[in-house]
Amino acid sequence: MSARSALAAKTIRATVERVVTRVNTLSAGGPGWTRPSYSDLESAAHTMIEEEALALGLAVSRDAAGNLFALLKGRNPQAIPLYAGSHLDTVAEGGAYDGQAGVAGALALAAALRAEDHTPEADLVITVTRAEESVWFPVSYVGSRAALGRLAREEMEAKRVDTQRSLAAHMRDQGFDPEAVANLVPPPPARFLEFHIEQGPVLHMAGEPYGIVTAIRGGLRYRSARVNGVWAHSGAAPYDGRADAVVAFSELVMAMDRVWAEKLAEGADLTVTFGRVDATSPAHAMAKVAGTLGFCLDMRSSDASTLDEADGRFRAEIARIEAARPGICFELGQQSRSQPAHLSAAMAGFIAGGAEARGVSPRRMLSGGGHDAAAFAAAGWDSVMVFIRNWNGSHCPDEGMDLEDLALAVESVHEAIRLEGRL
Amino acid sequence: MSARSALAAKTIRATVERVVTRVNTLSAGGPGWTRPSYSDLESAAHTMIEEEALALGLAVSRDAAGNLFALLKGRNPQAIPLYAGSHLDTVAEGGAYDGQAGVAGALALAAALRAEDHTPEADLVITVTRAEESVWFPVSYVGSRAALGRLAREEMEAKRVDTQRSLAAHMRDQGFDPEAVANLVPPPPARFLEFHIEQGPVLHMAGEPYGIVTAIRGGLRYRSARVNGVWAHSGAAPYDGRADAVVAFSELVMAMDRVWAEKLAEGADLTVTFGRVDATSPAHAMAKVAGTLGFCLDMRSSDASTLDEADGRFRAEIARIEAARPGICFELGQQSRSQPAHLSAAMAGFIAGGAEARGVSPRRMLSGGGHDAAAFAAAGWDSVMVFIRNWNGSHCPDEGMDLEDLALAVESVHEAIRLEGRL
Repeated sequence: MSARSALAAKTIRATVERVVTRVNTLSAGGPGWTRPSYSDLESAAHTMIEEEALALGLAVSRDAAGNLFALLKGRNPQAIPLYAGSHLDTVAEGGAYDGQAGVAGALALAAALRAEDHTPEADLVITVTRAEESVWFPVSYVGSRAALGRLAREEMEAKRVDTQRSLAAHMRDQGFDPEAVANLVPPPPARFLEFHIEQGPVLHMAGEPYGIVTAIRGGLRYRSARVNGVWAHSGAAPYDGRADAVVAFSELVMAMDRVWAEKLAEGADLTVTFGRVDATSPAHAMAKVAGTLGFCLDMRSSDASTLDEADGRFRAEIARIEAARPGICFELGQQSRSQPAHLSAAMAGFIAGGAEARGVSPRRMLSGGGHDAAAFAAAGWDSVMVFIRNWNGSHCPDEGMDLEDLALAVESVHEAIRLEGRL
Repeated sequence: MSARSALAAKTIRATVERVVTRVNTLSAGGPGWTRPSYSDLESAAHTMIEEEALALGLAVSRDAAGNLFALLKGRNPQAIPLYAGSHLDTVAEGGAYDGQAGVAGALALAAALRAEDHTPEADLVITVTRAEESVWFPVSYVGSRAALGRLAREEMEAKRVDTQRSLAAHMRDQGFDPEAVANLVPPPPARFLEFHIEQGPVLHMAGEPYGIVTAIRGGLRYRSARVNGVWAHSGAAPYDGRADAVVAFSELVMAMDRVWAEKLAEGADLTVTFGRVDATSPAHAMAKVAGTLGFCLDMRSSDASTLDEADGRFRAEIARIEAARPGICFELGQQSRSQPAHLSAAMAGFIAGGAEARGVSPRRMLSGGGHDAAAFAAAGWDSVMVFIRNWNGSHCPDEGMDLEDLALAVESVHEAIRLEGRL
């Protein structure tokens, strides 16, 4: 190993470790990490990255929605810029790596180039988005879509699920300008790269440190659905006359479990998840048949038509259950969707080239979770993701990632950037 | 109609209306009525009944647990006293009649006897129990069992589900003496009568104002059961590897729904209710497979062996689901039980005799809900209930009862009391 590459390797490892550690000092408490979208905690995390970027001598800017950009100028103004980054908000009681790892990896690229005093061919723009986790505001990819000029004015009125205040209000609280977001002129389409922990077990099971993502599943969601029945006494209401919201919901869950299995058997790509169930109001009690139950449903697929079909089956199962159970009535509320995103084959090749130069052939794989890269792809950017092995699930306090796996992935991209000038 | 019976009829109607109206001025707010067990609101309701009893010239006393007794002395000290009453606590967001109607009916009996200046053969003891609704403390019939010397010292340590403070502490807050309850000497077994709204639709469907209850279903409960799975990402965790707490719970609900239908087909008496379901922690989210879900189960039957069989099937279904779904593990927590109670045929005949004298033949029927009368029956008292027609379910804000139906039932019991002296 040359002194140059030894220095880059060391810088990459020091940077990812320091950035992940620093950001993870910020949490609202409870198990795991909680940094809501457009919260003071998310803003503080952005400030940390700004400090890191300034220490590397990068030129820092923010857009009207509070997305952070840190520019390492390339030598060829004609080369298409490479934006690299991720987000720093988390779900409630999330993990140590979802988002953070991608920001740390991007910053490590810049740090390695700086350490060896290498000016890349194209501009490298460290990109830290806002509000990627749609559990807070019922809107997908708020920050990245705002940066891309694709966040509609009415989406600003979405309410944060816990505070019931609007996205615009929370944006303003953090010092940003929702009015200006609507008129934001996005940068010309360029290239986008996102390191991220895998949210499933594929790489872990295969014993591989990282992989290249070629597509991102889209989602179809009912965030605040409800089934209403008829309150009754648990010991006195007979079997036949009941309209029990818990039983009707359970029948729907099992029906959709069968729909999912059938779709998989047909070779379709699909996930079906009822992640939140609420029959806990003051009126709910052991001695009462539940008259209402709230729930949410999240279905995902790499194929939009599969989502349509699954939604059709979902509505058909509801109609069947309502017909069979007088007094039962479902209210689905608003549906939200994100489109499946096919990532860039050219960018996959770019990453693979760097890996190949280091003697490895990372697998091509699918992303189950939605990511900012999907928003960039939808806006016509050449986008790609690099997944890092994770052995403990995602969106949970136990997310498991080895920083060394991330460092290996960063080294391959670093190699790809260095090669770019020579092609 | 004689002037005497006209006066009694008028007094009964005025009393039930006034008592129900007065008690229902007391509520913690929200839809319906909320008077927790051993709360200031329950105590205030007891004080109202004390005022009513004192106005009738009855001798009022309270036992160490705060149960209220108001004595109308009979003419024959050898005759077995008739205790009549019910409770004044409610479930959260309960109705206008559950408990109240029974106290109002009992007081109306005394008021009618007083109005016509009739001294009954036996002592009439208006009885207002404490803490009948076991949704607050996970203990059945707290007040009546305390009055009967059957509340165990360790049951005093049960925690109120919302405050997490003990029954003993709440009892003390209301000025009573949990230590003395353990040593309480109960009155000699006598007769107990409870008017109560029916908690199912039987009388309403039949178009009958009241009926005589011959047995009370017992209950088998898991008040704080839980199913644990494995948290995962909704879009990335594959079908086969999931341990989804919501799906496992739903499978259990549907399995127990089938068990219930099978038991009914066998001619057994059973109800099965999952009344509360909680997958709403900060960790639960639309984008996560639920790693845990809390629930409660209430099964009731007039036959204790049916409850045992249903519990066996419940545990077998859980074992089957755990075996089929690696990572799924149920924690049932403590089981609580109340025994089915067979009420007194002699007391049913006593009530029927009064009704017959008024030209009516009320039906004999089963109680689905547990009631204080079950505790008196278990202690060897000759107990009976009179159910009043109700058309809107029970334990809910919409409980529907016509005060005229209650008045008709009270008139029949009043007639039975008047006849008693002459037999």
